[in-house]
Formats: sequence, structure tokens, C-alpha cells
Amino acid sequence: MENKYAKRIEALRALMDKNGWDAIILTGSDPHSSEYPGQRWKQVEWLTGFSGECGDVVVTADHAGLWTDTRFFIQAGIQLPGTGVELHKTRVPEQVLIPEWLSKYAFPADGSGRCVTVAVDGLCQRVSAIDTLADAFKATGRQADGEGDTFSIVSAPDFMSELWEDRPAIPQTPMFNLSASYTGETRETRLARIREAIADKGCDAMMLTALDEIAWTLNVRGNDIEYVPVTISYLLVTAEDAKWFVIKDSYDELDDESKETLKAVCAGGVSLYAYDEVADVLAQSMTDGSIKKIFVDPSTLNFYLQQVFDKNAAPGAVVRGDSPVQMMKSIKNQSEMDGMRASHVEDGIAMEKFLYWLEAAVQDSADGGKPVTEWDASLRLTAYRAECDGTRGDSFSTISAYGPGAALPHYVTPQVGAPEIEPHGLYLNDSGGHYLFGTTDITRTTPMGECTQLEKEDYTLVLRCHINLAKAVFPIGTCGPHLDILARNPLWQTHRNFGHGTGHGVGFYLGVHEGPQEFRQNFNNIVFQPGMILTNEPGLYREGMHGVRHESQMLVVEDGTSEFGTWLKFEVLTLCHIDTSAVLPELMNRDEIEWLNAYNKRVYDTLSPRLPAEVAEWLKEKCEPIGI
Amino acid sequence: MENKYAKRIEALRALMDKNGWDAIILTGSDPHSSEYPGQRWKQVEWLTGFSGECGDVVVTADHAGLWTDTRFFIQAGIQLPGTGVELHKTRVPEQVLIPEWLSKYAFPADGSGRCVTVAVDGLCQRVSAIDTLADAFKATGRQADGEGDTFSIVSAPDFMSELWEDRPAIPQTPMFNLSASYTGETRETRLARIREAIADKGCDAMMLTALDEIAWTLNVRGNDIEYVPVTISYLLVTAEDAKWFVIKDSYDELDDESKETLKAVCAGGVSLYAYDEVADVLAQSMTDGSIKKIFVDPSTLNFYLQQVFDKNAAPGAVVRGDSPVQMMKSIKNQSEMDGMRASHVEDGIAMEKFLYWLEAAVQDSADGGKPVTEWDASLRLTAYRAECDGTRGDSFSTISAYGPGAALPHYVTPQVGAPEIEPHGLYLNDSGGHYLFGTTDITRTTPMGECTQLEKEDYTLVLRCHINLAKAVFPIGTCGPHLDILARNPLWQTHRNFGHGTGHGVGFYLGVHEGPQEFRQNFNNIVFQPGMILTNEPGLYREGMHGVRHESQMLVVEDGTSEFGTWLKFEVLTLCHIDTSAVLPELMNRDEIEWLNAYNKRVYDTLSPRLPAEVAEWLKEKCEPIGI
Repeated sequence: MENKYAKRIEALRALMDKNGWDAIILTGSDPHSSEYPGQRWKQVEWLTGFSGECGDVVVTADHAGLWTDTRFFIQAGIQLPGTGVELHKTRVPEQVLIPEWLSKYAFPADGSGRCVTVAVDGLCQRVSAIDTLADAFKATGRQADGEGDTFSIVSAPDFMSELWEDRPAIPQTPMFNLSASYTGETRETRLARIREAIADKGCDAMMLTALDEIAWTLNVRGNDIEYVPVTISYLLVTAEDAKWFVIKDSYDELDDESKETLKAVCAGGVSLYAYDEVADVLAQSMTDGSIKKIFVDPSTLNFYLQQVFDKNAAPGAVVRGDSPVQMMKSIKNQSEMDGMRASHVEDGIAMEKFLYWLEAAVQDSADGGKPVTEWDASLRLTAYRAECDGTRGDSFSTISAYGPGAALPHYVTPQVGAPEIEPHGLYLNDSGGHYLFGTTDITRTTPMGECTQLEKEDYTLVLRCHINLAKAVFPIGTCGPHLDILARNPLWQTHRNFGHGTGHGVGFYLGVHEGPQEFRQNFNNIVFQPGMILTNEPGLYREGMHGVRHESQMLVVEDGTSEFGTWLKFEVLTLCHIDTSAVLPELMNRDEIEWLNAYNKRVYDTLSPRLPAEVAEWLKEKCEPIGI
Repeated sequence: MENKYAKRIEALRALMDKNGWDAIILTGSDPHSSEYPGQRWKQVEWLTGFSGECGDVVVTADHAGLWTDTRFFIQAGIQLPGTGVELHKTRVPEQVLIPEWLSKYAFPADGSGRCVTVAVDGLCQRVSAIDTLADAFKATGRQADGEGDTFSIVSAPDFMSELWEDRPAIPQTPMFNLSASYTGETRETRLARIREAIADKGCDAMMLTALDEIAWTLNVRGNDIEYVPVTISYLLVTAEDAKWFVIKDSYDELDDESKETLKAVCAGGVSLYAYDEVADVLAQSMTDGSIKKIFVDPSTLNFYLQQVFDKNAAPGAVVRGDSPVQMMKSIKNQSEMDGMRASHVEDGIAMEKFLYWLEAAVQDSADGGKPVTEWDASLRLTAYRAECDGTRGDSFSTISAYGPGAALPHYVTPQVGAPEIEPHGLYLNDSGGHYLFGTTDITRTTPMGECTQLEKEDYTLVLRCHINLAKAVFPIGTCGPHLDILARNPLWQTHRNFGHGTGHGVGFYLGVHEGPQEFRQNFNNIVFQPGMILTNEPGLYREGMHGVRHESQMLVVEDGTSEFGTWLKFEVLTLCHIDTSAVLPELMNRDEIEWLNAYNKRVYDTLSPRLPAEVAEWLKEKCEPIGI
């Protein structure tokens, strides 16, 4: 057995045997349910070689499986052979998810009633996932410590460290204070609002585990997670104080700005603790009665900490629910709204410079000049963003995709061997930037020259979807699933569809994806409120041919009152022209064309004073209205 | 105290006192949760004089209140004064529903811990409502038989009979066999499908309590409920047999056709029982073990029978869930679909004759002839329907409303003193018929002559809503709340809205309203399937001015498969032209006008061969296409 991953799995099986584990589950998550966990938590990749963003692994004595969704089937097909790991497909009609699979295969067929032990890295499993697992076992008649077949779910924090010799440490990067002149609110006020919410729930404490919620609360940003400017830590808020479990090595090893930041936070009534003290402090607080009732969010609390509560908290002393900070964070205040608007002006300038450069560079390559690859384009855009006022880097890994690559909604542009962009067909760029005063996320699909009829139809229909959602006016009480069809109906009318959500929330110089609001068919009951931000990103993907996506960010704003109620609408934040050369006006309604012309005019009027003359002139042509 | 209702409430309080009840709840429902209960169950009206369709009453020692919604505030304001009954408004933001109100006021303020007894007529309270009540009490810390304040919810079946001397008996009307040539399926097959569903749920019996489900299962129709062709009864289906609790007086007193029908049902493996034997038989079956696990639907099972189970069933022997018959009934088979189509041809002929007559009669009245009132119009339409092939009467009470009356979505046309219909403005008619082979429900708003700009705008925008929903194409997996906005967006764009659901299911010669599918903002997760029928009825109501509603029935049908999935669409069943004289084409999109012209052409082509020559000629003009 030569394959290094196969060897690692064998070593893992020996460890399982030693500990009496019948199965292990490994996730690609970190102790805070982060979207982009660091190297230390790429346990799935280390064990199996699979490097996709989403994938969970189950290993038993006679089976090793990777569960991942449609986006990663091709990648898994390339990376898994030789490892002995089998692909289990999810988001397909015939899927068998891990809880159901384990229910079926982990228990002895003879019904002998032996207790089956499933081990997880409790740090990297959220409580809600463990609940789902236990419920699935119970649904098939298995009891936790009951009669008949029984099971036990064991938390073994960092168990992979025993096998993974050079496992990276927990990141500790510089952090800095994000002034209230940007955030519009001091950490004292935010802590006070959280304490009010805690009291409303009949609790005297809350455990914050989601890193963006902690960053938002404390007005601190860091770099511990790629693309998300946060600091790995826990925050325990009680009526009297707030304990921040943040120091990974030693205080002395921090840089000066980080030390200043920590001092400022302490001045706001927060005490500092070592990151790994969290379990002991929680145990102590629950047993000595200093905390009587604590609020936790099981969608981000990890199983390891849940077990600390299980052992130390009185019955009923842990109250579960959706974190109130999530909702506070999603409703932007005036300063945050102004900042988001400003960040989109900066971002629009970078985007227009980029698209101007791209058109010329591709034309030049067609005229015998240097070829332009998807990767070249990606680098160039990052460089333009880096020139912007307040820039803090990209907000996620740019998708720079030409032709067939764009047909993969989660395409990763290869650094080596990226396809060349040719002077015809569609180029798709999905990217974003962080700014001290906001975060952007934009997709523009750009016709690079001649397009086929099908490309034009898809381009136009997706644009109609985008426009219909952008034009929405809706009464108080409306939620995402009510509006979602506006961004699908023009496609559905021609039997076309896209397989992803239509839009997500965006953080204020925080995660580019945040909840709780979204545009999606799922019955999300979060009511849209003024100050919420959502992306609007319908698409259409034809395997092996092309992909189209038009994405802008929108802010929920008030739209007055009539005898029929109070109304809301969207203000489009994103400022970058939508190319009209691939539009088929005969497929559009008059009001849609009017919207398109008005939007492009607004882009030109806003950006042109700050663009180089030649770019402004070029943009003027791009923004010419099309006939109705 | 002169008022007769006030006296009845005093008598009720004496009864409460005698029985030790602190509060009673009275509903307008019957033992089967029927939508239109008979006279026997108009207990609220008998006690308070309030005759609205929806209203529940609570009486305590010092308070009597009626809970009803926006539709009935005016009516309650007229009928309640002098009775001592206070109006509690529901479907308003500040509403306090009965469970919350009782939680607040029924318990002793001194927290003395006395047990509070709330009596209900268990026959007329569905189990789910009692659950809600108990949950509300528990949510405020009250225990059923625990410490502190406790409560007891007592079922007192028919307790009002003690006060209500001439209370009507349970109706027993003639019934008849609805041939499988209409229903497309024998009762044997339907019983077999139900037995399969019961087994799927791990049960060996099911209690059917909803009258339309029983009628559907047995292919029997009756007249026990106004507008709903059913027979008041219970049906107990087990693996071996089916017991029908149906005979209210004696078998001998039945008419010949009813006797024949019962014989036919018995030949299909069903045994007959007296209606009032149900409790004893259930108790016996649960205690002697002949039923081990019974399935019930708490949304139609009454509290009285639930208590029979509570006393006699082993723990876990009663399984609750949505009745599978509801879903079977909602998906029409080929014969039912064909019948529904045929019933809409009949109904269309009646409607076009009516509209032809109406236009002429109102013109004649304007020329000095006899006035035409809303009531006259209503009678005339009922008469035209009564001439149709297969007619079985109206499917609900016709709403015939001119001008301001149409602004009330649930207007009741007065028999005496109905407003006259004048040769201008909008007349709204919402009506339907039963046929041996289907049930119809249609609303047409008809311009009677000159209309104001606002009337035309409202008429056109509601029509756009109606058309956009009718044109919907959607993938498998789509539910009502996903599509609902299609029938609101054109109104929302101009800050207009309507306050009712957009559409409901329709029975096959059964209730004109049936579940489980609907168009509504509520998150109803019933996936649309071919064979389901829904109404499409957006509206717009301006108090004191006018109302608009355009309603047709639609059938879910297949629309082929593409690389993006399998598609469904709607086939419009209703056949009656939509008047174009109040349409403002400049407010419509091209595809909407095309739809309207094509629909009117289809109406003319289908109906004209069967219409009198003068009506056909008139209809031809009405169906002339309008310019794009």
C-alpha cells in the first residue's frame, strides 16, 4: 500500500482500535464553524488528499467515505483514487447523508445490542450536527444508554494531532481596533445591547462562538482566517463583565498594535483570557453559580463546549437559540450603510479599470500580442483593488472564468495552465474586496466579442431575473423565499434554472457571506428590515459551454407608506456597468430596459469623475442607453 | 336586562356556576371541523346574536367576549350592542387571541394556585385548538395537575343543549352513490389505498373525521351541510374492515335511494353503525386490542373523541399527523380532471348567459326600465346554473356586489334592500356551482359602463397579477408561497396589496375550499403535483369605493423536461371571458396582452357553439383581441 493517504487512514484505524471507536467523523470545520478554516483544520485534506471546500469523512473498520456535494464530484474523482476513500454524493436525489449511513452500517447486523461508539473531534463539530446524528440513530430505534442497540457519541478533541505530526498551530495574527467612526457604534453600546437581549431571554450570560459576531461586538479585526478579518477567540458576556478568550501564545509575543487593541478592549470592560482557558472558566462559572442561565447558539457552539455544559451546568441552565448578535449585525446602522456605499464606489473604480484593461488586453492578444489567461485577469483585478482607498484585500478567492470554466458556479481559477481569454464568448468574474468601511461582492459577465444566440439568450434572461429582483417593492413582513422567484421566473418560463441560492447577506468589513437573511427557495422566515444587505446573483450554467451570472449587492431601504401598508425596496449598492452588447432587447420588457439604462447612467455619473479620462470615455460608451 | 342574548349569557353563567367552570369557550364549528356547520352548531349565534361565519366566544364570571377577524368587525358592531358581549379583534397587529387572553385573565390574580377549569364543547373543538390552549397556559407557567396555578380543560359535549330548548337535531338528509364513472375509482380501491397509507405509518387503523374525506373515500354524497355535499358521519378504517358511523335516527326512516346507497357501500366491505355509537366502539376497540395503533388527524379530530382515546388507548397507540386522504383527494385522477373540465364548460355557459343578461338589464334600467339589484343578479345567475347539465346547485353563497359592496372581500348580498347596479363602475360576482362531475368557483369583475381612472388602474393591475400567476412555469418541488408573489408583484410595484390568500384547492363535487395546497404567503410546504387544482384570485379593495377580483380555477399539469429539470404549469379550467373595456393596455406587458387575447379566444371558441345565437354574437365582440 503505497498511497500516503491510505497509510494515514490505516494509522487512524489503529488509533480507533486502541480507543475502542467503531467509527470516526471528521469535518473540514474549525471550533467556530468558520466558512474558511485555516490549515490546522484541513483535517479532511490531510487524511484523504481531498482539498475541496466542503467534505466530511467517515472511517469505520471496513469503510472510508467522503461526503461532498455536486460542486466537488469532479475534484473528488481526481483526488480520491488510490486512497481507498469512496465518494458519497450529496445534494443528489438518492443521497444518503452521514447520520442515515451510520444508522445503517455502524450497528452490528446481529442486533446484539453492543454499544456502538462514534468518535468526533468535538472541537470541530457544531452541536446542531451532533443533535442531527443522535436523532438519526434514535429514529432507527437506537438508544443512547438504553436497551437494545445503543450508541455513544464521544468527543475526542484534536484526536488527529496524535497522527499529524507537523500539524499547524492555532493562528495568532495581528489585530487592530476598528474605530467607531467606521462601525458607528462603540463596543460598550454593543455589549449593552447584547446584555439586553440576554436578559430578554431570561438568561444572565451568553457564549459567543462565531468569530464574526465577536469581531462585530468588540470592534476588532484580525487576520486569523483567510478572507475573513477576524481573531480566533471565544467571548463570554455576562451581566457584569465580558471575558475574551483570545491569547493563543503569550501576550508578550504580540505586536504593538495588537497590544494597543487589547488595551482598548479592556478599557471597554472586557477581561482577557487565554484561548485554551475557556473550558475551565465555563465549568467553574456554571458550578459556582456565578452564571445561572447561559444562552448559546447550537449552530456555532462546538460539541466539546457543549459537553463542558453537560458536565457542569444545572438542568435548564443552558438555553439554546439563534444568536441575537447575528440579527444585530445584519442590520447596518447609518455609518455602516454609508461605509458600504463608499466601499462600492472604490470597488466600482477598480472593476471599471479592470474591465477597460481586459477588453484592450484581449483585443491585443487577438492582434498577436501576449495571451491573457484567467489567472492573469484575476491578478490584475486584485492589483486594481489594492490601489483603492481603504483597501484591505480581496474578500474571497476571485472566480475568473472564461467559457466552460464559468459553467462551474464554484470554479477555482488555476494558477498554472489557466485557459486563455479569447475575443468572443462570455467571461465571468466573481470577486470582492474588503475595505475599512465595507465589504463588496460582485459578479459581472462580460461578452468578449461575438456571442452565440444561446449565450445572448442566457445573458439576457439572467439579466431580466437580476433586474426583476432589484426592482422589487414589498410590504413589511416579506422574507427571502417570497421574493426568490422574481430572480427565476424569466428563466423558468423557458425551462431554464440555476441550482444555487439567489443571494446572501454580507458583513461590514467581515465575512462576505453572513446570515440570517437570504434569497433562496428554503423557507427562511427572517423578515427583511431596512439596513439589511443582500446579494442578487441569479445565473445560468451550461456544462462545457458557458456560464452567466449577474451579481450586485442591495440594501433594504424604506419606500414609504400607502393605505395598503408600509413598503420596502432595494437600493443597489454595486457600481459597475452591465454590458449591453449581449442583450437581446426583444426578450425584455420595457420597464426592464428602462431599469438597465438608468442603472448604467448612474454608474457612469457616479464613477466617471474619479476614473482616468480614457477609462471614463470608454465607460460612457458602455453606458449608452439601449432602445426600447 | 331586556336583551334576549344577555339573558342567555346569564343562564349560561348559572350553568357554569353549577358545574364549577371558571370559563367556557364556544365555537361556531361542528364535530367534524366543517367550514359551513348546520343550524344545530350555530351556538355562537344563538348565544350572542352574532351571525358572522367566523367567531368564537369566551364567557367568564365577569366577561363575555367574541373573537372575530377584520371581515366581521362591522357586523359585530351592529349585532353585539346590548348583549354585553365585547368584541376582541383578530388579524390585527395588536390582537390577543383566546389562549393568551385566558392565560392572562382566567387565573386568580393572587396566584393562590386554585385549579382553573375551562369548559369546552368537546365535540366542537378540534384537538389542535385544545393543544394550542394548553400550550399557552403552560407557556405562562401554569401546569395541568402540577404545582402552583393549575388548570383543567374539561370537555362537556353539547352542554348548550341544556339551555337551548329547541336546538335543531343533527341533520340526516338523503344520500346517493356517486358512480365510479364520475369519480374514476371505486370505494374498494380507495379503501385499499388508505390501508396502505395506514400501514406505512406503522398503524393498523385510521379514524376519518373530516366529512369530505369520508365522502371521497366512500363515493357517497349527501346534503347534511349547506353547500358541501356530504353526510355527517365518522369512518373507522382498519386493516380488516371499515365501520361507518352514519345513521342518526333509524335506518327505516331513510328514503329508498339512501338505503340503496348504504347497501352498495356495505357491498364494498363497510359495516354500518349509528352515529352516536362511535365513542363506545372506539373505546372497545382500543381496550380489547383489536386496534393496536390508530392514526388520527388532530386538525379535524374533536376533543371529545381524543378523550375517549386518552381514557382507553395504551401509551403510543394513537399516532397523530396530517390525514393522507387529504393529499389523495387533492390529486385528481383522469376522470376527475375530465369532469372538472366539463363542469367548467357548463359553468361558463351559465356565466356568459348571465353577463349577457346583466348588461342588457342594467342598460334597460338606465333607459327607464326596472332596476336591477345585486340580489336580482344573484338569483338570475343561480337560475342559469340550475339549467346546466349535471347541476347540483351553488357551491357557496354568491357574492353579488356593486361598487362599495365589492370592496368587502366577504360581502354578503342582502336579500332585502340590496343596492342597485348602475350603468357605470365595477360589478363583482364571486360564485360557483356543483356538478355531478365537478365543482366551480369563479370571480369576474365587470365594468358596467364608464369607469374612473383608478377603477381602470386597479382592474388592470389585478388582471396582470392574475395573468402572471396563470402563466407560471415551475420545476418539481415548487410550493404555493414560492409562486404567490407572481399574483402580487404588479400591485406591490404601485404600493397596492390585498389582504387575503391568492388561491385554494377545490374539491371534486365536494367542498369548494380544500387543502392541503394553496397560494399564500404562509410557508405551506405542500409541493404542487399534477392533478392538483387551485384558484387564482388576486384582488384590490378600496373601502367605500370599489373592489376588483379576477378568479379562475387552474389545474397543475406537466410541461415537459429540459436539461434543467422537469417542469409543471397551469391549465386554466375556468371558461368565461375577461372584459377588456376597463383594461389600460399601456400598463401591461406584451406577453400579458397576448395571454389575455388568447384566453378570450379560447373562451369564445369553446363556448360559442353551445350558446344561444345572440349571446354567442355578443360574446364574440367581448372577446375581440386588444392591441399590443
